[in-house]
Amino acid sequence: MSTNNHLVIMAGGIGSRFWPMSTPERPKQFIDVLGCGRTLLQLTLDRFAGVCPAENVWVVTSAAYAAQVAEQLPDVPRDHILMEPCRRNTAPCIAYVSWCIKVLNPQANIVVTASDHVVMDVQEFRRVIGGALSFTSETDAIVTLGMKPTRPETGYGYIQADLSVASARNKEIYRVDSFREKPDLATAEKYLRRNNYFWNSGIFVFRVSTIINALRVYQPEMSAIFEGMQAVYGTAKEQETINERFPLCESISIDYAVMEKAEEIFVFPASFGWSDLGTWGSLHEQSQRDANNNACIGPDIRLFDTHNCVVHTTGERKVVVQGLDGYIVAEHDDTLLICRLSEEQRIKQFSE
Amino acid sequence: MSTNNHLVIMAGGIGSRFWPMSTPERPKQFIDVLGCGRTLLQLTLDRFAGVCPAENVWVVTSAAYAAQVAEQLPDVPRDHILMEPCRRNTAPCIAYVSWCIKVLNPQANIVVTASDHVVMDVQEFRRVIGGALSFTSETDAIVTLGMKPTRPETGYGYIQADLSVASARNKEIYRVDSFREKPDLATAEKYLRRNNYFWNSGIFVFRVSTIINALRVYQPEMSAIFEGMQAVYGTAKEQETINERFPLCESISIDYAVMEKAEEIFVFPASFGWSDLGTWGSLHEQSQRDANNNACIGPDIRLFDTHNCVVHTTGERKVVVQGLDGYIVAEHDDTLLICRLSEEQRIKQFSE
Repeated sequence: MSTNNHLVIMAGGIGSRFWPMSTPERPKQFIDVLGCGRTLLQLTLDRFAGVCPAENVWVVTSAAYAAQVAEQLPDVPRDHILMEPCRRNTAPCIAYVSWCIKVLNPQANIVVTASDHVVMDVQEFRRVIGGALSFTSETDAIVTLGMKPTRPETGYGYIQADLSVASARNKEIYRVDSFREKPDLATAEKYLRRNNYFWNSGIFVFRVSTIINALRVYQPEMSAIFEGMQAVYGTAKEQETINERFPLCESISIDYAVMEKAEEIFVFPASFGWSDLGTWGSLHEQSQRDANNNACIGPDIRLFDTHNCVVHTTGERKVVVQGLDGYIVAEHDDTLLICRLSEEQRIKQFSE
Repeated sequence: MSTNNHLVIMAGGIGSRFWPMSTPERPKQFIDVLGCGRTLLQLTLDRFAGVCPAENVWVVTSAAYAAQVAEQLPDVPRDHILMEPCRRNTAPCIAYVSWCIKVLNPQANIVVTASDHVVMDVQEFRRVIGGALSFTSETDAIVTLGMKPTRPETGYGYIQADLSVASARNKEIYRVDSFREKPDLATAEKYLRRNNYFWNSGIFVFRVSTIINALRVYQPEMSAIFEGMQAVYGTAKEQETINERFPLCESISIDYAVMEKAEEIFVFPASFGWSDLGTWGSLHEQSQRDANNNACIGPDIRLFDTHNCVVHTTGERKVVVQGLDGYIVAEHDDTLLICRLSEEQRIKQFSE
């Protein structure tokens, strides 16, 4: 484990698609979504065990969630829990933490990940992360992790790889041809038939100098904002200054801001049972299911004549369900949702 | 209002068919089942306003529920809340309270009612009760209230009346030919086609001397038990003695014990929107329903694409239901039930 390795966990999402389990006060990264005794945020840190020292872990979130992060990840240094004053998508988030890290260690080698995804095969995950970190430690590359697609998923962006030449340093890593937006079903089916399209997992690996150089080139205004705060990172004035300047950043994803523009972008195609858990349907798929294809997550759930459902409770709830097929039943605090899985895109509407 | 009038409310039921709303700790008579701000027990007392003085109200229940009765009915004298040491059906219950009343007032004229039924037309109810009390005050009759059936209900017992001769004292009161058990559907349909079969509401009116004489004749052993305790009614020794002797009573309904055997049994056919609320289906029918035939009882229930459901929550729950047809959704404390209305006879099984 190199002491240059840093881990950045982005934990500012509000998880509106998982209402009522996930609420703006306590979004899904702070919840034991899988019912395994650890929250998604904790599972995220867990799967990076051995990748970097605890003092090199960073979490970027909002002020509203900082206490929850500190409570759930007690080993993360309190001053590594960065608080964005407003939501500006992933590019300003990554820029902010990158400048913070550069002040401490200009040789830092960084993995950036979301806080609310799941990975089933952690051993393979660690092998891939290790390979990517090793690769970026010796190059100016930005490595993305591309998930080998198993279905024509329309909910993910895709990475088109040039599989004709593997990288000399790591035969599993390839150059990226292009990033593709979430496709329609016909396009997703086409991607699936070919073998060079991969789901964009949003997991990136790069040295701090690489990402900062790329930001300087492709996002000069944003870079100027963070460059101008060099004197305050790690000081008592940091938060106040960030609160003033961060809102000036354009709201833009790192994909748009850098990945689609930069030259040295690579993809590491991999299969480690990844999901962004973006929908109840994906939670259903990622969870252990009974003989009737029901995913039950909660301490006391009993089903009768019930099929293809996901039943999720937090707290000590007792639930009896009879005669449902293809439904979400979700309870959290004092809110109950019963909804067809096929209608889950309407959950935002229901929660208003 | 005659000071001889007494009201007896039987409130010892455990309401197992309404799980999880109704639990052994807090059965349905103690719950605001209709969402109107009053429990079924309170509504029961409310509908007798003007029938008898507050000091003539009696509630027979178990020790476990006495505190809930006292809390919900603060105007009922504490020593009129009688505690059965065990459940012995309605005959011992009525015998016990009748002997208690006789000690205080041998001229008492009594209405007996369940605590967990509903009546929609309270004005008509009072008119009928007044007529029945007037009738029994002048006769040795036992008057039952017979509900004019509106459907071939198989969940109620029936009273067959002899409509050929109305009583001279009240032209709406007739002699009973027989009591009939809960019928099968074909029989219920036959009863409905005739006009002399009425639902047995379990509401009885009689003078205390009438019921005690009938019990002495038809239930001599039970009567001996209560006769033998004459010296303790209303004294500090009452509970201790009842706890010893009451369990010796046969468990038998007043219908079997007296009504089906006695001579002077009358029925007052009436229509005042009565239901025993014995099932979720009957609650659905008795409740106000929306344009999609849903009955929603709770502070914050929102339905989408949902029909023919009964949604019942207690406490400050928020519920969103999408895409259900013909279901019970019931939440109470930390328990949730989702079940087809057509399968509600399985609720006892679910609750175990």
